[in-house]
Amino acid sequence: MGRRPSPGASVGAGALLQLLRDGVPRTRSELSALTGLARSTVTGRVDALLAAGLIAPSGETASTGGRPPATFAFNPAARIVLGADLGATHARLAVIDLAGNVLAVANADLDIALGPKAVLDWTIDRGRKLLDQVGRPAADLLGVGIGLPGPVEHSTGRAVNPPIMPGWDGFDVPGYVRERIPVPVMCDNDVNIMALGEHFTAWPEYEHLLFIKAATGIGCGIIADGKVYRGAQGAAGDMGHIRVAHADDVHCRCGNTGCLEAVASGGAIAAKLTEQGIPAGGSLDVVELARSGSVPALRLVRQAGRDIGEVLAGAVNFFNPSIIVIGGSLALAGDHLIAGVREVIYQRSLPLATRHLRIAAARTGESSGAIGAGVMVIEHALDPDRLDSASFGAELKNG
Amino acid sequence: MGRRPSPGASVGAGALLQLLRDGVPRTRSELSALTGLARSTVTGRVDALLAAGLIAPSGETASTGGRPPATFAFNPAARIVLGADLGATHARLAVIDLAGNVLAVANADLDIALGPKAVLDWTIDRGRKLLDQVGRPAADLLGVGIGLPGPVEHSTGRAVNPPIMPGWDGFDVPGYVRERIPVPVMCDNDVNIMALGEHFTAWPEYEHLLFIKAATGIGCGIIADGKVYRGAQGAAGDMGHIRVAHADDVHCRCGNTGCLEAVASGGAIAAKLTEQGIPAGGSLDVVELARSGSVPALRLVRQAGRDIGEVLAGAVNFFNPSIIVIGGSLALAGDHLIAGVREVIYQRSLPLATRHLRIAAARTGESSGAIGAGVMVIEHALDPDRLDSASFGAELKNG
Repeated sequence: MGRRPSPGASVGAGALLQLLRDGVPRTRSELSALTGLARSTVTGRVDALLAAGLIAPSGETASTGGRPPATFAFNPAARIVLGADLGATHARLAVIDLAGNVLAVANADLDIALGPKAVLDWTIDRGRKLLDQVGRPAADLLGVGIGLPGPVEHSTGRAVNPPIMPGWDGFDVPGYVRERIPVPVMCDNDVNIMALGEHFTAWPEYEHLLFIKAATGIGCGIIADGKVYRGAQGAAGDMGHIRVAHADDVHCRCGNTGCLEAVASGGAIAAKLTEQGIPAGGSLDVVELARSGSVPALRLVRQAGRDIGEVLAGAVNFFNPSIIVIGGSLALAGDHLIAGVREVIYQRSLPLATRHLRIAAARTGESSGAIGAGVMVIEHALDPDRLDSASFGAELKNG
Repeated sequence: MGRRPSPGASVGAGALLQLLRDGVPRTRSELSALTGLARSTVTGRVDALLAAGLIAPSGETASTGGRPPATFAFNPAARIVLGADLGATHARLAVIDLAGNVLAVANADLDIALGPKAVLDWTIDRGRKLLDQVGRPAADLLGVGIGLPGPVEHSTGRAVNPPIMPGWDGFDVPGYVRERIPVPVMCDNDVNIMALGEHFTAWPEYEHLLFIKAATGIGCGIIADGKVYRGAQGAAGDMGHIRVAHADDVHCRCGNTGCLEAVASGGAIAAKLTEQGIPAGGSLDVVELARSGSVPALRLVRQAGRDIGEVLAGAVNFFNPSIIVIGGSLALAGDHLIAGVREVIYQRSLPLATRHLRIAAARTGESSGAIGAGVMVIEHALDPDRLDSASFGAELKNG
């Protein structure tokens, strides 16, 4: 057994953990019988999972004479993850355990335009305090997940030409954080982690989910077959610049005309209200006006829902999701946005694709992004294929 | 080891085959060392793979004294698959081996409206003759794959409300064929198998592929992360009824207005030409006119390309594919269709999503569907997770 397994070829730790994630305690013999792995292999892999804290001894089985064999089970409380959702003007942090239980959250006003070092230093500092608050040492940290409000190259964790993030273009976010907290660090855009947080927390039974963030911009996070779908360049779900019919005269900041974001975002609605003599600075003003019953605001929010629905109607035919979840600050304006979305999707999409389609408001609230950032790290760390690769152990070991 | 492994928990045959598909011969000891599986497990799984014909003894290793140990390797030529692409008026069959090599093809005029029994009886009869032609017994058949020109519930292989297939609604296609050829039978719609055939044969290095079939109808097959993406009800890729801007006055057979199929399909172009005094009965007439240099036909084909491009521009932002492959009979009209598609996609889609996007004409020709139907069966049969399930062996055994 001195031969080093080639990546992806060895089987063992990942398969064992996959088996044990159901929470049932099992002995080494049972694990060997269930997987076909050699006893010596099982012992080695169990030791590695014990060292990583991912499984724990869970007592002994009923004795059948002689010393009873030890059993092991998945140990979701032993390790924790820090998730950070860094928005344009707000930051949200969450500490969760490996089962996704939220142990602590923190929110703060934080301008992403302060640049990567200032923002990440704050995140690291606040994250450490959050660990202290829940009484857990840094050695318990399995990893850190970070969401950013712009395009992110997921493989490297670097922001790519982010429009509202001066100083972040190409910055090595995982590298900077890892130098200060020596654990695996992963990065993605905010909409993907919000989709993941919503899916994990509120809709785990829906395999094909579209999460719409309707706020200052409009974006979409895609869960396909239960996993985040990112596409060839990680740009999948960028629906804000898909063309809306009858809006050819509207100019978008991207240089094109008729883009969804230019007609249906919080900023676009605020501008239209201001034009009508009702001053509004952005999506939060729009939400406040709509909630206070302003008819022009309600009409514009409903029309924005219809415009979003028009683009989603195409996405429904194309992607055939099982659920569409509408979130983002504009969704806080009440049922008018989602009513407009429903109106057009049921009018325009094919019956086969809408027969069982659910269209619902987001449930997880403002922490969905921070939770999703943590879930991203957990799903990656516990991925059976990855655990089976040769690098297992080194990366996950405590501290 | 008498305990029956729970589905998905056992590891072995699938992992072994995955390892051996690289073609390198290995001994039982090497397989045990590489996978961590017990020697007894390896022996059992190797025997099962040998019995299924998926691997074969490949000679002996250099002797180091004593009897040299036997080696085994993937055996792609030992088993074959029959693929059938049943179109509206044409049927195409292909026999391929497990590496996707095409051993024989057959084409015939066949009206799908004859109903399932007549069409499938012909397919079975012609398929058997094709096996005779390549000199292979039915016992070598690993499975049969079938593509149908309408929506198919992939899990059951039944057609669902197919508009042009009278008598097929809900018919148990796999059951009917399996009674006559007792092997696994899988069914999918024609666009999905064409996408699979194109991907496997011509573009295996592109992980995210959209295959557009532009013909009497317009449909799209999606390859995501290297696999067919079907969505929640198997309806994914149904782009023919996505709305095109500026076509609100065009009525579609689906009951809506402005659908892509109503303005850009071969039938729609033929109708417009006929209106202009140039008689055309369908997409093949359109292709002939375009090829003979008819300016009205060329203009309409190019405009159809633009309309398809408009819908695809949204799909590019949303799905971020690495390649779009344009096929179907309309694509035979020359470069005008694809030029129109390119024109609008590069104008409307985001730079990040088009930077490395390739837009190409289909390469595999009229057999892509039949080949893809066979590939569907191979990918399913050799799927490591499935091979690791408890039912392995029973299903794949010869004859």
